Amino acid sequence: MNNASALYQYGTLAMLVPGLFEGTLTLEELLKHGDTGIGTGDGLDGELVILDDKAYQIDGDGKVNELDKDFTVPFANVHFASFEHLMNVHALYNMNDLEEKISSSQDWQNTFFSVRAHGTFKSVDTRSISKQSKPYPTLVECAHNQREFHGEDVEGTVIGYFSPQLFNGAAVGGYHLHFLADDKSIGGHLLNFEMVSGDVKVQKLDELVQKLPSKNEDFMKHDFSKDDIAGAIGEAE
Amino acid sequence: MNNASALYQYGTLAMLVPGLFEGTLTLEELLKHGDTGIGTGDGLDGELVILDDKAYQIDGDGKVNELDKDFTVPFANVHFASFEHLMNVHALYNMNDLEEKISSSQDWQNTFFSVRAHGTFKSVDTRSISKQSKPYPTLVECAHNQREFHGEDVEGTVIGYFSPQLFNGAAVGGYHLHFLADDKSIGGHLLNFEMVSGDVKVQKLDELVQKLPSKNEDFMKHDFSKDDIAGAIGEAE
Repeated sequence: MNNASALYQYGTLAMLVPGLFEGTLTLEELLKHGDTGIGTGDGLDGELVILDDKAYQIDGDGKVNELDKDFTVPFANVHFASFEHLMNVHALYNMNDLEEKISSSQDWQNTFFSVRAHGTFKSVDTRSISKQSKPYPTLVECAHNQREFHGEDVEGTVIGYFSPQLFNGAAVGGYHLHFLADDKSIGGHLLNFEMVSGDVKVQKLDELVQKLPSKNEDFMKHDFSKDDIAGAIGEAE
Repeated sequence: MNNASALYQYGTLAMLVPGLFEGTLTLEELLKHGDTGIGTGDGLDGELVILDDKAYQIDGDGKVNELDKDFTVPFANVHFASFEHLMNVHALYNMNDLEEKISSSQDWQNTFFSVRAHGTFKSVDTRSISKQSKPYPTLVECAHNQREFHGEDVEGTVIGYFSPQLFNGAAVGGYHLHFLADDKSIGGHLLNFEMVSGDVKVQKLDELVQKLPSKNEDFMKHDFSKDDIAGAIGEAE
């Protein structure tokens, strides 16, 4: 039986900071641990959205591609969807409003949870990045080469996770949200939005299953003590 | 089938820093996730050693007690033993020597692993603490009230874990080792030892299953932003 309280995380965000972008897990393997989630591809190849057991990539040009099971990831989060309705949106909420509204609805600041919101967006701002080549740049260098996308009057889904600050570095402390339009016209890592109406669901995940790529020599040999992990996450995420 | 690469952690070390010591998981539940490990009891009630599916408490007076399945823990680490022989000890090793020898034997600084060493110790220095009452003191306050124990010419087992620095706060970054003498004459949180001879085994654990006590209101409502978690771990662990 699937564990509906477990958040599976492959890799750590800290790995991405110095440029450890190699995809070391296939989607086939990843999807054994969840049907819903977010991530990035081999070489930081776009932003991923996984909904209802289907994985989509928003590539560096903003195009949405459905992914094969042999696509590999360096970093991803998935869980088995079992969301509870939290609220309906009637007023205009930007991303910060929505995050604050969710956070103030319950005392979940010390646990992981997932957010899935579907509705109508007056505007959506996202970003994505093209696949990088070896030798990989750092995450902050990549952040300067991302493309941003803007959509208006979009129907779509916000999907992502909240992680306690204690786990910043392994994960993104706080909210980490991606977006996918119903018509696949826009998606990516969410920068902001104006949500007009919709349904917000949450799922408490009080168990983090943190898998490390322990067969990847670049990861195992890397000296993380010189990386400013929190600083880079703040700048790049 | 048991997952021999998973380290199950119940609670976080960060919880202990402000005094969230309430036992919220029974040993019966804990031992479903491993037969080997370390931890502490409800109210910081001693230091625990779990070997071969049996749980022992080294209490605040240094006495070793075998624990019932209904004993509860606020924080513990367990895994299913499947160790590999790393080396035999012939020369005199103190705790720091042994840790350095293990660390230099392989590139495991970025993954979790367990250490189990059995042998003859010229001397062993441990500490433990008595059960605290509510309102609980902080971890650093408790550290000043611990008792230390000294043994000589002891046969026994070192058991514990190494955690990557990225997870310091959730776990103890670096080594976190406990001890139990074969004749139960001494045990506890290891401060130092002089190992004369013995067998050192290790087990790579590249998956951390981090379970949070999300039904414990004191934990869920706590504001960790004011706690100096890394500082307290450095002082108390």
